[in-house]
Amino acid sequence: MQRRIASIGIVIIFSWLFGKEGLWLPTQIASLPLEEEGFQITALDIYNPEGVSLKDAIVNLGGGTAEFVSPDGLLLTNHHVAYGAVQRASTRGKDYLTNGFLAATREEELPAPGTTARILLRAEDVTDRVLDQLERNLSPLDRERQIKAHIQALREEVESEGEDLEARIAGMYSGREYWLFVYRRFDDVRVVYMPPLAIGNYGAEIDNWMWPRHSGDFAFLRVYATPEGRGREYDPANVPYHPQTYLKMSTHDLDPGDVTFILGYPGHTNRYRTSYAVRYNLERAYPRTLREFRLVMDLLDSVSMGNHIAELKVAGRKKGLANYLKKTQGMQEAMERAGFLAEKQQFEQDLTAFLQSRRKWRKRYGDVLPALEEHYRALAARDPRDHVLDLFGWLGGTLAANANGIVYTVMEREKPVAERDPDFNEKDVQRRVERLRYSYYSYYEPAEEALLTWVLTESQRLPTGMRIAPLDDLIREQGTPAQAAAYLVENTTLDSLPLVQAWYQASSEDLRQSEDPLLQLALHLYPLLEEHRRWAETWNAEMKDLRQQYISAVEQFRRRPIYPDANGTLRFTYGRVAGYSPRDAVRYEPQTTLKGVIEKDTGVEPFNLPPALRDLETRKDFGDWIDPELEDVPVAFTHQCDITNGNSGSPVLNAWGELVGIAFDLNYEALLADWRYDENLERTISVDIRYVLFVTQKFAGAERILTELGY
Amino acid sequence: MQRRIASIGIVIIFSWLFGKEGLWLPTQIASLPLEEEGFQITALDIYNPEGVSLKDAIVNLGGGTAEFVSPDGLLLTNHHVAYGAVQRASTRGKDYLTNGFLAATREEELPAPGTTARILLRAEDVTDRVLDQLERNLSPLDRERQIKAHIQALREEVESEGEDLEARIAGMYSGREYWLFVYRRFDDVRVVYMPPLAIGNYGAEIDNWMWPRHSGDFAFLRVYATPEGRGREYDPANVPYHPQTYLKMSTHDLDPGDVTFILGYPGHTNRYRTSYAVRYNLERAYPRTLREFRLVMDLLDSVSMGNHIAELKVAGRKKGLANYLKKTQGMQEAMERAGFLAEKQQFEQDLTAFLQSRRKWRKRYGDVLPALEEHYRALAARDPRDHVLDLFGWLGGTLAANANGIVYTVMEREKPVAERDPDFNEKDVQRRVERLRYSYYSYYEPAEEALLTWVLTESQRLPTGMRIAPLDDLIREQGTPAQAAAYLVENTTLDSLPLVQAWYQASSEDLRQSEDPLLQLALHLYPLLEEHRRWAETWNAEMKDLRQQYISAVEQFRRRPIYPDANGTLRFTYGRVAGYSPRDAVRYEPQTTLKGVIEKDTGVEPFNLPPALRDLETRKDFGDWIDPELEDVPVAFTHQCDITNGNSGSPVLNAWGELVGIAFDLNYEALLADWRYDENLERTISVDIRYVLFVTQKFAGAERILTELGY
Repeated sequence: MQRRIASIGIVIIFSWLFGKEGLWLPTQIASLPLEEEGFQITALDIYNPEGVSLKDAIVNLGGGTAEFVSPDGLLLTNHHVAYGAVQRASTRGKDYLTNGFLAATREEELPAPGTTARILLRAEDVTDRVLDQLERNLSPLDRERQIKAHIQALREEVESEGEDLEARIAGMYSGREYWLFVYRRFDDVRVVYMPPLAIGNYGAEIDNWMWPRHSGDFAFLRVYATPEGRGREYDPANVPYHPQTYLKMSTHDLDPGDVTFILGYPGHTNRYRTSYAVRYNLERAYPRTLREFRLVMDLLDSVSMGNHIAELKVAGRKKGLANYLKKTQGMQEAMERAGFLAEKQQFEQDLTAFLQSRRKWRKRYGDVLPALEEHYRALAARDPRDHVLDLFGWLGGTLAANANGIVYTVMEREKPVAERDPDFNEKDVQRRVERLRYSYYSYYEPAEEALLTWVLTESQRLPTGMRIAPLDDLIREQGTPAQAAAYLVENTTLDSLPLVQAWYQASSEDLRQSEDPLLQLALHLYPLLEEHRRWAETWNAEMKDLRQQYISAVEQFRRRPIYPDANGTLRFTYGRVAGYSPRDAVRYEPQTTLKGVIEKDTGVEPFNLPPALRDLETRKDFGDWIDPELEDVPVAFTHQCDITNGNSGSPVLNAWGELVGIAFDLNYEALLADWRYDENLERTISVDIRYVLFVTQKFAGAERILTELGY
Repeated sequence: MQRRIASIGIVIIFSWLFGKEGLWLPTQIASLPLEEEGFQITALDIYNPEGVSLKDAIVNLGGGTAEFVSPDGLLLTNHHVAYGAVQRASTRGKDYLTNGFLAATREEELPAPGTTARILLRAEDVTDRVLDQLERNLSPLDRERQIKAHIQALREEVESEGEDLEARIAGMYSGREYWLFVYRRFDDVRVVYMPPLAIGNYGAEIDNWMWPRHSGDFAFLRVYATPEGRGREYDPANVPYHPQTYLKMSTHDLDPGDVTFILGYPGHTNRYRTSYAVRYNLERAYPRTLREFRLVMDLLDSVSMGNHIAELKVAGRKKGLANYLKKTQGMQEAMERAGFLAEKQQFEQDLTAFLQSRRKWRKRYGDVLPALEEHYRALAARDPRDHVLDLFGWLGGTLAANANGIVYTVMEREKPVAERDPDFNEKDVQRRVERLRYSYYSYYEPAEEALLTWVLTESQRLPTGMRIAPLDDLIREQGTPAQAAAYLVENTTLDSLPLVQAWYQASSEDLRQSEDPLLQLALHLYPLLEEHRRWAETWNAEMKDLRQQYISAVEQFRRRPIYPDANGTLRFTYGRVAGYSPRDAVRYEPQTTLKGVIEKDTGVEPFNLPPALRDLETRKDFGDWIDPELEDVPVAFTHQCDITNGNSGSPVLNAWGELVGIAFDLNYEALLADWRYDENLERTISVDIRYVLFVTQKFAGAERILTELGY
């Protein structure tokens, strides 16, 4: 009997150790069993709304996360997060992407245009204010519009307090709660050290999403501000920013089993979606993405291959597509392998049985699942046509996206305020126009023409009854999709950035008078896009309401604390350094080493290691960065933290709150992670801080950075 | 100090546990530390020259090994060893290869023509007799000829004792010792159970040489003999053979760390070769094999694709080529990865320094390495032309090989005995002629024509000074290599097996009078082949002498017991069940499971599992074959035994001498194994006997076999 109790105890401990699901809100940290997990710091050390805590060292970098590591605003993030900025700063003869970049002095630090750092000043539950005084018995659409108006007012109120302030109100649990996040915004971010591509992106697409991993996916940036510590655009008079706090480098070796945690900005998860959503993705969205992305990547290759400047121009777009393509493929495979659709259906059957079991639940939630199913049916019915319309704002290229953006902006601006799209906001327009120049850094006309040709060709595949008349007309007039695209690109004025910026300030009459064929096309598409937007607005409002009810039903059914889906706001996740078993008889260890980096080196891209790094290994010149157990420099590690896109560049901290790594990926086997956490298979992949320091010191010789870090 | 001694002790134990190099002669078993390794049986239980021991259950199957597992001559071997026999027994509508074969009764057991089982009766050191009364100061060639004559005489003496006896005299340590092996030969071997291809060869070429592995690479055969227990050809009057002993099925679960051993017939290793041999292979032989095998496999595909009978005809040849191709590729990669050439060069430097250090060694062995180098230089100089000549007896197809075989035989026979090729032997000729029909089972004329075209094309690539006049003449006369090949195939009589057999008995005058263009070509090639054979005979004799000296020098230098290279004679190897690490952060466990078989099933060849096997897994209908630790049926395992080609089908036995598996492969990472044992990377891959029994009982329902095995 004693023996039985002991093994129950073991089971409980194991579930503690291994069940690491959760993208927790900062305010939820205090409810987690940190002490039992071996944390040597408290929840307040991590997140303290009243004082300085580790969260004040965390920076939102738009699509990724970064962290302060010195009192002078030095940032660490991923190589792939800094990629776009460095790409834009690269020119013929100064290919910082390929060769890497090291600023020998502060003066040489390289402006990284288009990179914005946001520092979270405060977070506040504003549910009461957002939902305050909503009229009763509103339709979901009208209710949502009122909510948006409240949010808009709240945002304007906060942002009026300072030019560099940004307010974001995020709905949690599909709008059951609303939180206000106030950021200070810094647009002067500079590159301090970026390792060469063959280190930072070693293995590239072959190794992307894969473990074992051997890339040094890190970069050092620095935030610059006014002497008063306010954010502004690049200015020679700006000085290094002094953050309230910064992360200390680890003084403990990181070993398997050690507890770690991450603070960062995960972008988006679907942890509370239904089988209808899964089916929609499996049958429609994923196959379409796979087909289209492959096509577009081939197109970009065919128009740029052999032309180095063109290759640089399309590199960022291709990298983004390739990354998401592999993720989509992995998600599809993972769903199929896991029988995820059947699992969701089973869960919904059990949930339904539970809800039917008590009158109260039946009455409150009984209709939710059928209504969700009906909404996906309605979506699928319109989907092919709406998707082609969407392409004109996205995969169709910069020209088409700008044409539609101009027409939309001008038209909304001229409407009475009450009739406007509730998402329309003059300040957003202004920011978008300011940022236009970054999209023109990578503007490449042959790519534009190829993308337009492709989108027009797609429109010709639509069945009767879904045809898009303005596109049919254009193609009929010009002959073929290719001829139509050539005509548009040849005769548009939107290849000129100043003209595009000017058009944003034009009147609808100016647009109508214009001879720009792309603007004319956008004008003809506008009513269709308007109808699509209105339909989607209603659909989204109704779905938001239904999902909120669904989450509450699930919470009743599960009877344990839940966390909201990721939505680009600050989250906390923790778990131990641990390997996993990807398939029968194969076991992945949780740490890779410099020896493994050398093993992969073939001399051929993407495994073309700089000889100087190989030499360091040959000479065993590891400096202080050797791990005593591994007897080598540790390179990357896997741990149980629960992350997703947007977490890239997040700090990985140990039980003492010291920096032990930078998160940069999930493993391929865990690609269902956006939908479901799998404790056996989901692992965060992080670069070990000792490899970061080894490369920075021994390979790059950047003693200036080491000194600033306190070495 | 005590601590230091303890760790030295640990190091010694570790080297005992992990250093499992050695293809030991049966007579060497008694000198191995079996008891320390945990053996529960003695060396005499394994090999007892005076009585019955486990070795009496071991059977040589030509290219592989098999073992008796019942008193009625039931044999276990690999699916891939029985492959050729079953292929020859398959016809349209009776595709036993694809579907498998189960004899419901003994009467239905399927004759497997061309399969010969040899049972070792005795082994004897005959060095004294072979080297007895050799004249002094002979050239290596003349010495070798005298040795061959002694061997021939000894062989005839033994074989005269019984019609089913075969004597083989094998040189060990490059002729330092000679051993006589006396076998009883059984030509009536029948198929009892062969699993379908999708189990026996599950994963096929994709998984070949790979771990983790999930194929059920086994087959049950039975040896038939005269009622008196003598071997003879298939005869309905034959009865099951009753071996002196047979192997018992394991009564112990096999777990990681358990000791195992193998008795079998490894074919060939190069453990005592020099850097000159390595360089020759790396620079010449391997790249040539890779190029030629790929070409020939493509040719065989192109002439058979879509024609099921044709595909069956070329399947055996293709399988052999694919297997060796992957091995060659792996050896080349392994040599390059390991820096094997440099390692050998370093060893030779150290050896040279050692030999120079004492006058005695310098005098005895000082010239050996330079002489070996010179011999490889001479070989390389002639190599391209000799290689094309060789192709006419091999990759050039059945027709060309027979034409050259006939001419060679007739010419040798007419020579005075003293001038004959010392390897010429009328009994061998007779056996070869008898076996001809097996090569005609897979005769397929379009393949013959394509192979001849290819070989003729190769001859046209030879540089001036190496040209082969008869081939040049033929091609000039006919126009192109393709036209020449078509002419030969169209007009030859050698597509008829009886005519081929008749030609073997003809006179040289008959050949000269013949109008068969292929025989005429062979007559023209004969003087060139004669010159090539004579040169090679001298080269081999000199090399044998040099290698013998080299091995003795290495033995002096290393000062530990050595074993002779594999040469198709019975060997013993032992080691523990153990996984390995193929690359950084990846660890392979030593056992695979039925769950892993299911995981790989895609429904598409070669991962098209029979649904009935999948159903067994779904129902967890594992019978008695579940492993308590794995909680599943174990499928395959890796262990440290040191094997090579020819060991295929060898029994794997545990500490009690019980059968735990059947060896069928080495892992890809160990492909340097023929040249050098690597304790970290070399593993034997064996099918677990529990999977054999699970498939036989639960999938095939062959209770008859289970009963015969004693269940």
